Amino acid sequence: MSSAWLLPEHIADVLPAQARRVEELRRIWLDVARSYGYELVMPPLLEHLDSLLSGTGRALDLRTFKLVDQLSGRTLGVRADATPQVARIDAHLLNRDSVTRLCYCGPVLHTRPASPQASREPLQLGCEIYGHAGLEAELESTELALEGLLGSGLTDLVIDLADVRLIEGVLAGLGITALDDTTRTALVAALTAKDVAALRELADQGPLAAAPDAARVLVGLTTLYGGDEVLDQARALLPDHPMVGAALRDLGWLAGHLRQTQADVRVGFDLSDLSGYAYYSGTRFAVYGAGLADALVRGGRYDEVGAVFGRRRPAVGFSLDLKVLAELLASRSGLAVRPAVRAPWGEDPALRQAVRTLRGQGHTVVCVLPGHEHDVQEFDCDRELALVDGRWTVRAL
Amino acid sequence: MSSAWLLPEHIADVLPAQARRVEELRRIWLDVARSYGYELVMPPLLEHLDSLLSGTGRALDLRTFKLVDQLSGRTLGVRADATPQVARIDAHLLNRDSVTRLCYCGPVLHTRPASPQASREPLQLGCEIYGHAGLEAELESTELALEGLLGSGLTDLVIDLADVRLIEGVLAGLGITALDDTTRTALVAALTAKDVAALRELADQGPLAAAPDAARVLVGLTTLYGGDEVLDQARALLPDHPMVGAALRDLGWLAGHLRQTQADVRVGFDLSDLSGYAYYSGTRFAVYGAGLADALVRGGRYDEVGAVFGRRRPAVGFSLDLKVLAELLASRSGLAVRPAVRAPWGEDPALRQAVRTLRGQGHTVVCVLPGHEHDVQEFDCDRELALVDGRWTVRAL
Repeated sequence: MSSAWLLPEHIADVLPAQARRVEELRRIWLDVARSYGYELVMPPLLEHLDSLLSGTGRALDLRTFKLVDQLSGRTLGVRADATPQVARIDAHLLNRDSVTRLCYCGPVLHTRPASPQASREPLQLGCEIYGHAGLEAELESTELALEGLLGSGLTDLVIDLADVRLIEGVLAGLGITALDDTTRTALVAALTAKDVAALRELADQGPLAAAPDAARVLVGLTTLYGGDEVLDQARALLPDHPMVGAALRDLGWLAGHLRQTQADVRVGFDLSDLSGYAYYSGTRFAVYGAGLADALVRGGRYDEVGAVFGRRRPAVGFSLDLKVLAELLASRSGLAVRPAVRAPWGEDPALRQAVRTLRGQGHTVVCVLPGHEHDVQEFDCDRELALVDGRWTVRAL
Repeated sequence: MSSAWLLPEHIADVLPAQARRVEELRRIWLDVARSYGYELVMPPLLEHLDSLLSGTGRALDLRTFKLVDQLSGRTLGVRADATPQVARIDAHLLNRDSVTRLCYCGPVLHTRPASPQASREPLQLGCEIYGHAGLEAELESTELALEGLLGSGLTDLVIDLADVRLIEGVLAGLGITALDDTTRTALVAALTAKDVAALRELADQGPLAAAPDAARVLVGLTTLYGGDEVLDQARALLPDHPMVGAALRDLGWLAGHLRQTQADVRVGFDLSDLSGYAYYSGTRFAVYGAGLADALVRGGRYDEVGAVFGRRRPAVGFSLDLKVLAELLASRSGLAVRPAVRAPWGEDPALRQAVRTLRGQGHTVVCVLPGHEHDVQEFDCDRELALVDGRWTVRAL
């Protein structure tokens, strides 16, 4: 299925069986989003680099392909993530005061793959809700994500909740008010990877060394994953700071409501997971398929993303790569192939009408062009259109 | 609807109403293609430049954005046209001997807009049939294109036929065996634009001056558009060369068959139209909406495109820009808006179940989040879910 020898590394064609699966997933997700009232938008692949990268952090900058615009001489970027674009659309173009729900689906390009197996051209689908600061937005977003995954045919889903306010609250509670970018980046990476050795090293030196409790609290944070007991453990372990309290209260609310409506989904916590940290400002969620190391869907609250476009609107959303989802489904089950009808080529108007009628009814009719009657048929034809007693009739093959 | 002040020139966001229209067109076309047995493929946005531009001519090279691959140091191109990619997939990846039908739909990027109003990010949809040298392939391809346009809601379609073998045959018939690239490019441009002054100038100098008849024949070619009388006029005017004879015979066959099956479509000829000349090797077609200067769909035979990938397979196909089609439809008719159901936010399991059931039935249900009861509703809600006599009931608004 791969043409790596001809294509750049981490770039691949999507061939028929898989492409059909991706297209079906695209329709399932966009239809679910529409049923929740999410309006489709299509931001462009290309933007001025400054607009594309405003407020999104250095990681996205490194991941973005740059081009020079022959028309203006300015530097353009090929989007590596559509979320900031959709925030721009909410802030500038729609400019509504009311709650706005938007969804999108399109390719993004990465200069480097996100992981050794990752594609540099994910097909990103996302749903975003703007204008509501309450947890009802998070609940709707997580429910929509779960419904999309269940509708895609996945079962045994696990949703892990987290909140970036925990780390901010922990640092404030430890008395650390200013943290340089390098230390912060290293801290986020170590917490996300649950890298205890790196955390101990960070706690022993630099600005964190000023807080005697830092090592115990940060290492403890990496153990805070699992079920409801995690929230109690967090209350015992983490410094008593308003941000910590608010985060734990919100996480408890969200988990409780998710359990009520999503009986088939296991709801848990992973409080040191800070993936995609640069965006988020509040609760976070990641949905995993059973036995999968990487999250299928990531989302959460990112109230700050629209601020660079002049509107600090509350925002909650998620995104996923439909190609990854399609690959996962391909490995688990065969695609339900829709068999086709084979028809001869001919000028008989009755034959042409019969073909047209069948296609109009949603059947696939493959015309065998003259001279190709004995070709190997790649298409799975289980019926044929044949002249029986003067009438064009569908019969089994 | 435009955000030109923030986005690069000829790049725009597609906002909700238009995005919904584009998505519906995408589904209509891919479903029609599927009903004909065309398998979906998704070639990547990025390829090595040499593979992307092999055999496609200088015009495509100038239109292609170039990037450097950080992983390999090689020059990559962002596709400006997906057709050569699909030919590569047929030649290399599928490698079938039988007839292969492929379709695709995705964005392409252009360094410069194709016309003063054009987008630099068309959404290209195309259908290609490989492995059949006979005119039945052209007939199927044109019928599929017309069915897509009719299915999109267009009426009063005009299809103009042409054949690149005419110009080759004319030149050979005039005794001109070698033509430098510059003269050939100028000749093709002048014929396509029906630029009589430029044609007279070309005929008076350089290699064409050797043929005394050149001016008369080439200028005459520009008058060969209209109905069936054009084929007779062409037989009288053009040199008697086997390529000319074959082209006129094929055009007559194709027009006759199209008229039989497409009673609602006006079938004509425009024999000097050489747009997209670099690709094509035989018959060509362009479909116009009534009163439109630019073709909505262009296609034809391009047997040579796969040759650079090692397989000289017969090939016929067409492509179009779904964004252009969506804009045209937007200007002609309002989109049938599907009104939504408004629901209150609440924790009542019966309310949540009622919302879920409605969504499962295909309705859009917009939950009014707490505190937003008096927001302006952007969504067109014509019903609401309300508690009536203890039951959640849909009622008109």
